[in-house]
Amino acid sequence: MKKHILVIPGDGIGPEVTTWGKAVLEKIGQDFGHEFTFDEALMGHAGIEATGNPLPDETLAKAKASDAILFGAIGHIKYDNDPSAKVRPEQGLLKIRKELGLYANLRPIMLFDELLDASSLKPEILKGTDILFFRELTGDVYFGEKKRSEDRNTASDLMIYSRYEVERIAIKAYEAAMVRGKRLCSVDKANVLEASRLWREVVQEIAKNYPEVETEHMFIDNAAMQLVKNPKKFDVVLTANLFGDILTDEASQIAGSMGMLASASIGDGTGFFEPIHGSAHDIAGMDKANPLASILSVALMLEISFGLKDEARLITSAIDKALKEGYRTGDIADANTDKAKILGTKAMGQKVLEYL
Amino acid sequence: MKKHILVIPGDGIGPEVTTWGKAVLEKIGQDFGHEFTFDEALMGHAGIEATGNPLPDETLAKAKASDAILFGAIGHIKYDNDPSAKVRPEQGLLKIRKELGLYANLRPIMLFDELLDASSLKPEILKGTDILFFRELTGDVYFGEKKRSEDRNTASDLMIYSRYEVERIAIKAYEAAMVRGKRLCSVDKANVLEASRLWREVVQEIAKNYPEVETEHMFIDNAAMQLVKNPKKFDVVLTANLFGDILTDEASQIAGSMGMLASASIGDGTGFFEPIHGSAHDIAGMDKANPLASILSVALMLEISFGLKDEARLITSAIDKALKEGYRTGDIADANTDKAKILGTKAMGQKVLEYL
Ligand SMILES: CC(C)[C@H](C(=O)O)[C@@H](O)C(=O)O
Ligand SMILES: CC(C)[C@H](C(=O)O)[C@@H](O)C(=O)O
Repeated sequence: MKKHILVIPGDGIGPEVTTWGKAVLEKIGQDFGHEFTFDEALMGHAGIEATGNPLPDETLAKAKASDAILFGAIGHIKYDNDPSAKVRPEQGLLKIRKELGLYANLRPIMLFDELLDASSLKPEILKGTDILFFRELTGDVYFGEKKRSEDRNTASDLMIYSRYEVERIAIKAYEAAMVRGKRLCSVDKANVLEASRLWREVVQEIAKNYPEVETEHMFIDNAAMQLVKNPKKFDVVLTANLFGDILTDEASQIAGSMGMLASASIGDGTGFFEPIHGSAHDIAGMDKANPLASILSVALMLEISFGLKDEARLITSAIDKALKEGYRTGDIADANTDKAKILGTKAMGQKVLEYL
Repeated sequence: MKKHILVIPGDGIGPEVTTWGKAVLEKIGQDFGHEFTFDEALMGHAGIEATGNPLPDETLAKAKASDAILFGAIGHIKYDNDPSAKVRPEQGLLKIRKELGLYANLRPIMLFDELLDASSLKPEILKGTDILFFRELTGDVYFGEKKRSEDRNTASDLMIYSRYEVERIAIKAYEAAMVRGKRLCSVDKANVLEASRLWREVVQEIAKNYPEVETEHMFIDNAAMQLVKNPKKFDVVLTANLFGDILTDEASQIAGSMGMLASASIGDGTGFFEPIHGSAHDIAGMDKANPLASILSVALMLEISFGLKDEARLITSAIDKALKEGYRTGDIADANTDKAKILGTKAMGQKVLEYL
């Protein structure tokens, strides 16, 4: 198989974790005789520094010309503390999602048995949890009109959805539910929001085409609670952009660490793969970041964009093996872990390559 | 002390839990020689059934004439499954919040030691958690303009904040932080939302007047995660209406059960006190609901609206005693609890009265 992959390292710990995602792709390419070619591009703070633009034109052109994209992380503390900055790293990520039509963000919450103890939840609550989130990614209050009054004293964002936006992601989520546990929970705030009422209407309609799937509608406040109370009860979770942002981060804690979670953004064209974690500037460049989410993002890429299931499974097994041998990065190590086996970013990346 | 209290039982389990909140008020009145008088009114589904209006005019008039309001719960499954219903129970609650200017919703997350095991979080993660949420309650996407296109295929809600709305609740939150742990975490999504950028600007300004308070700004996705990961790190949490709705429900799981959490809504006039839990129609009328959140709402009323701290403390102690003796309602009982001590709504209410 011949594929061209664009690597966008981004900001903070992005570059150092993405190195290992790419290394794993190269190794898989060699071992299985796939011809993977690579290019690299800037985005976010890195894009602003180099070109003044969080999504340089060149990056977008390269993205459109690639078969899949491996992304690192975005954001910089400098902008977080300056709410009035006009140009912001995150705009790059939002724009590329929109430009590539990446309307469905898939976030699997998978648990490695070895990490059951790394979570703040009780192991018996966690064990058996297997959730696949479908977060809508190109609509909602993220992309609705933003306004600031002339005196700067009033600010607004429009939360808006159209029928076709809900339909297309609902169909993807139901199709996934059919090959999983046949349960789908759609999360909204239909008791208050008009956009959620449309959301619920559309999901109710699509549900009719999937009578085998058991559909539940849940309010976001309740869902945020149930996810902590009893994560096992969820199979496929379908939700809007903002609610999905919140719920998937919350759910990451269930998996023991953000550092273990990958996501796939898909839609009209090229797929986009990235860890759930952010740029974590406090540990950037310190060889402390967990590269496993980037490596798992590569597994998702192989499976979803290239249909290479065996290769994907091999990656998960290699990670499993590293964990079983007791190797941990700092974020997933707990007091009971043998201290001698705590690894830095590079050493953990090497371990996975070794076990591949 | 002479006070007039309006009781609004509302929907579902509202009436049966509110009975016990009221009974506790009566007992406190007798024991301490306060003259508490009561009236009752309809709201929500109950209001719709009787008058067609989720907030009957009479209810609003009575509310304005009272010194404090004890509310039960709102909502009915019938409307949840019918996203196109024009008149909805929740409108009553939203309207009374707006009409009474109840812009600050205080939700204390307090942990009874006896219930450490009822949570899905590990006891060592929980122990020592003591959070006071300040949720803005009369702005945001809850009250911004709602639209549905004529073809009904597009729906929107305006997320909007003005400077004075953020200022007044920020001041209340900082004042509270000053008499607590002097730490305040403001939660927003300033990397994406204009309304959040205004929010952050205003909080940064107010913060200057409270140099002793350590201020942190956190994105909502991260906050949803940190709350599960390490709830102890929070002291006062200040946030907008929608984010507060989500975070406080999530946090309720930390306290072991929604059934244990009360909230106070305050602002320009009469204070409004209610459990965090919803109407729970599945168990309504079955003598299964936990009356403790309603009783704790009464404790908040005595403390916040009437300044009766000793009386409030007495109520908390009585609940503590009931829990120490091993008495539990079903929602807070765990496998290790002596089954013989599981009580219904009435028996638990009686127990608290007895220990008062
Ligand atoms: C960086 C930010 C704009 C982004 C989002 O909110 O979508 C991130 O939190 C994510 O979840 O991918
Ligand atoms: C019933 C509903 C409208 C309400 C809200 O979202 O504010 C409830 O969830 C709450 O938290 O008080």
